[in-house]
Amino acid sequence: MLATRALLSKQTLAVLSRQPACFVHHGDYGNWGNTNVAVVFSGCGWWDGTDVHEGVTMYHLSRNGARFQMFAPNQQQMHVFDHMKKQPASGENNMMMEAARFSHGQGMTQMQDLSKLDVNSFDAVIFPGGHGIIKNSSFMKDGKDCKLHGDVERVLKDFHRSRKPILASMAPLLACRVLPGIEVTMGYERDDNTRWGHWPNTNMVQAVKGMGARHNVRDSYEAYVDEKNKVVSTPSFMWETDYHYYYIFDGIGNMVKHVMRMSTK
Amino acid sequence: MLATRALLSKQTLAVLSRQPACFVHHGDYGNWGNTNVAVVFSGCGWWDGTDVHEGVTMYHLSRNGARFQMFAPNQQQMHVFDHMKKQPASGENNMMMEAARFSHGQGMTQMQDLSKLDVNSFDAVIFPGGHGIIKNSSFMKDGKDCKLHGDVERVLKDFHRSRKPILASMAPLLACRVLPGIEVTMGYERDDNTRWGHWPNTNMVQAVKGMGARHNVRDSYEAYVDEKNKVVSTPSFMWETDYHYYYIFDGIGNMVKHVMRMSTK
Repeated sequence: MLATRALLSKQTLAVLSRQPACFVHHGDYGNWGNTNVAVVFSGCGWWDGTDVHEGVTMYHLSRNGARFQMFAPNQQQMHVFDHMKKQPASGENNMMMEAARFSHGQGMTQMQDLSKLDVNSFDAVIFPGGHGIIKNSSFMKDGKDCKLHGDVERVLKDFHRSRKPILASMAPLLACRVLPGIEVTMGYERDDNTRWGHWPNTNMVQAVKGMGARHNVRDSYEAYVDEKNKVVSTPSFMWETDYHYYYIFDGIGNMVKHVMRMSTK
Repeated sequence: MLATRALLSKQTLAVLSRQPACFVHHGDYGNWGNTNVAVVFSGCGWWDGTDVHEGVTMYHLSRNGARFQMFAPNQQQMHVFDHMKKQPASGENNMMMEAARFSHGQGMTQMQDLSKLDVNSFDAVIFPGGHGIIKNSSFMKDGKDCKLHGDVERVLKDFHRSRKPILASMAPLLACRVLPGIEVTMGYERDDNTRWGHWPNTNMVQAVKGMGARHNVRDSYEAYVDEKNKVVSTPSFMWETDYHYYYIFDGIGNMVKHVMRMSTK
């Protein structure tokens, strides 16, 4: 490394600092057109909403040349969560208000009410992970017999009926509840201690099996594609890791790559 | 595209769904060792805290084989912000509590009190962007004569004195306030309408110039390296864009690439 550094002239460093040498612009996967994707949030934060690290879904959509619009249910969260203590706290939070932390600029990147999501305006829908999407349903109380949030159920059924791709990490569990016989991955089926992390949420695998879905074991950097039902899933943070976050990033990237292929007009 | 799809057999698709074909694991930039980086947050959300999309700093650190620890000031935010209406709201928020939405698993990825950040335990420090880092200081009131949050000033001076890299997007403004004569980028100096976005925050460029820093024009996917002072900056969301989020992602990636080079032991 020291030798390498010595070889770098001031001029080379100046060029390096201007050139995004390690990245390809204008679409790693080619320019697949003007796909419009709905991204559904359920708050902000792994323990009660949408995981902030799964918001990178939008980076992958962006690199693939897709447009996107953000949505969230305009209603109270199951509970406010203390992300320091990792336990429920007092107060009330509105999911759309919390999810708006993901929105940024003006115009198209504003957060919208999920009740306004019309399947006819989009080519695909993505539900990034985080416990919020599960807590929107009655899963914590009713398990495999849970009832979904009305708009989440409507959106899943609308996109499935329209043969438009559905992407999900954690939300596959909900898709399995309302779309009988689909195939998904929620990661590993046993809490195997892999080299860089482990799998503490295998109860969710049992839940999707209990709902009649077929489960496929995948690593966190992989995506599983149910070509027949156009459902793409990735384990994401079902895998708990201290530092290997980029496995999750790549899993989401692979999921998006497939949805771009499937939704190309 | 249709021809390509026709060529893809079911077996090929099955392989595609297992193989992260577009990504290289175990370090895009080589394995540069056991670097430990402090990441300083100031809440959660572009308008009052750390931008959630800049949390991807951790994905870049992860891919480079770096360890990281998250910190935030344990005190009230300047104000609670309504991210739907993009205006201040009533109530009080603690920056560390809000920033904890970025934390995830257990152990090393827990959010820590910024007052505990010891320069001797880390090889570099990163301040991801978002208005929170500015609002922590008196910049909104005092402009170029602003006073910094005590721990932010201490950390900046400690890392600079120890010749350890400092990375920042938006926070370069604060670094300029306490580290005289450094060179940074805050993006464009005029609000030129580029093809995919524009530059509405040029007042911040004027502010860093007013503080005596040298400003260098860079695009959002670039990083500027002040080799002498070991300060690396990227414009990030100083550029306002609807869909070209991956430009920002790549800018942060380039910033991290340089800090890995500069902090290699």
